[in-house]
Amino acid sequence: MAISSTALPRIGVLGGMGPLASAEFMVKLVHATPAQRDQEHFPTTLDSSPQIPDRPSSLDGSGPDPFPAMIDVIRRLESDGCALIAMPCNTVHHWYDQLVDQTSLPIVHIADAVAARLRELSPQVRRVGVLGARVTSNLGIYSNRLGDEWEWVYASAEALDAMVMPGIAAVKAGDLAQGRILLLAAIQHMLTQRLDAIVLACTEIPVVIGQADVPVPVIDSTDALAQYTVAVAQAMR
Amino acid sequence: MAISSTALPRIGVLGGMGPLASAEFMVKLVHATPAQRDQEHFPTTLDSSPQIPDRPSSLDGSGPDPFPAMIDVIRRLESDGCALIAMPCNTVHHWYDQLVDQTSLPIVHIADAVAARLRELSPQVRRVGVLGARVTSNLGIYSNRLGDEWEWVYASAEALDAMVMPGIAAVKAGDLAQGRILLLAAIQHMLTQRLDAIVLACTEIPVVIGQADVPVPVIDSTDALAQYTVAVAQAMR
Repeated sequence: MAISSTALPRIGVLGGMGPLASAEFMVKLVHATPAQRDQEHFPTTLDSSPQIPDRPSSLDGSGPDPFPAMIDVIRRLESDGCALIAMPCNTVHHWYDQLVDQTSLPIVHIADAVAARLRELSPQVRRVGVLGARVTSNLGIYSNRLGDEWEWVYASAEALDAMVMPGIAAVKAGDLAQGRILLLAAIQHMLTQRLDAIVLACTEIPVVIGQADVPVPVIDSTDALAQYTVAVAQAMR
Repeated sequence: MAISSTALPRIGVLGGMGPLASAEFMVKLVHATPAQRDQEHFPTTLDSSPQIPDRPSSLDGSGPDPFPAMIDVIRRLESDGCALIAMPCNTVHHWYDQLVDQTSLPIVHIADAVAARLRELSPQVRRVGVLGARVTSNLGIYSNRLGDEWEWVYASAEALDAMVMPGIAAVKAGDLAQGRILLLAAIQHMLTQRLDAIVLACTEIPVVIGQADVPVPVIDSTDALAQYTVAVAQAMR
């Protein structure tokens, strides 16, 4: 049966952190949508605002507060008629509760998206590694949101310094071979802690690491967010 | 020198025709931007509205007029503070003049983007083939806009029926091997007309055809639009 076009809620995307990750998230949203023709896809607005002040700099006190610029984006998405909001960036979820307080629109949480994927895995999955940038580890984005349904294991400060952050930097700089070596080493290091699954919680990591590289289930947080956002939007129809 | 963030105009994208092409255009815009860090990328709003009525059906009189829905998108892009508009779809340019009449924002024309690329080629390039869907051929999107700076050669009705349209349909259906065979045959057929260059004027075609397949220069119209949009935005700074 054709989906009635007027029944489709508009998905809003608070983007630009970074711009490439947001653009690729739009591609993932399209692929995650069960549609036979253009008109069955969700109307979507991506507001990509890369001028939102740098999040890590704000968190360590060296840069301005990004929150007002994030609210500007949400106001535009509201006035464009969006019915829900997704944020394809792990770090921005540090401001999730504050953002929710400022809008009547539901905001999909990236940790809920990952949790939905984890629940599809075996119930034996308990210890879950989070491989992401330093701020993602330090902020406890997943453990704060999801509590003790799973045991969350973040990369150690040493692994972040020696492997994860240089690995992400290498991918950003286009040196994929070096990035892959460093990030595979980080995964090996994390796996010594008997993990049942690993979340790739940074856009650069899935560029060089795939399920074939890892002996436990791997979840790409941005992929999970795209699928979960579509599911939430479908439930709103 | 770092680009002053306040000086960057917001790019608006009238999208959703189709949704995947629009999403991939956002990725191309990011890659086309000379930026060292997030904050140097242009703020961008993609309004992807796949519920805009089908363009070919409107043109053959069997479906509703898409123009009012296109204007709705432009109004939202205006209110979001966009300073220019791009439309990553060849067919929609049939309505270009009417759309320009309804907004004070400049709208980048996909034919101008292709022309910019053609001017970078040798001045010997005169006869240019346009390989696109039937409506792109029938509407003369390129010849109407660009006149006689080049000689425009469209696929014949027979080639459209036997090769181009089935080839595009095969790519849309995921049968890339069959799509490639049909579209290569269409290119061979067009090349009998002594072309100096070929424009791939449909999103599906560059999925299976690349420069390596064709003995004359190939221009992907969506790629060209991304690069030209960035150039226009840079000139507005």
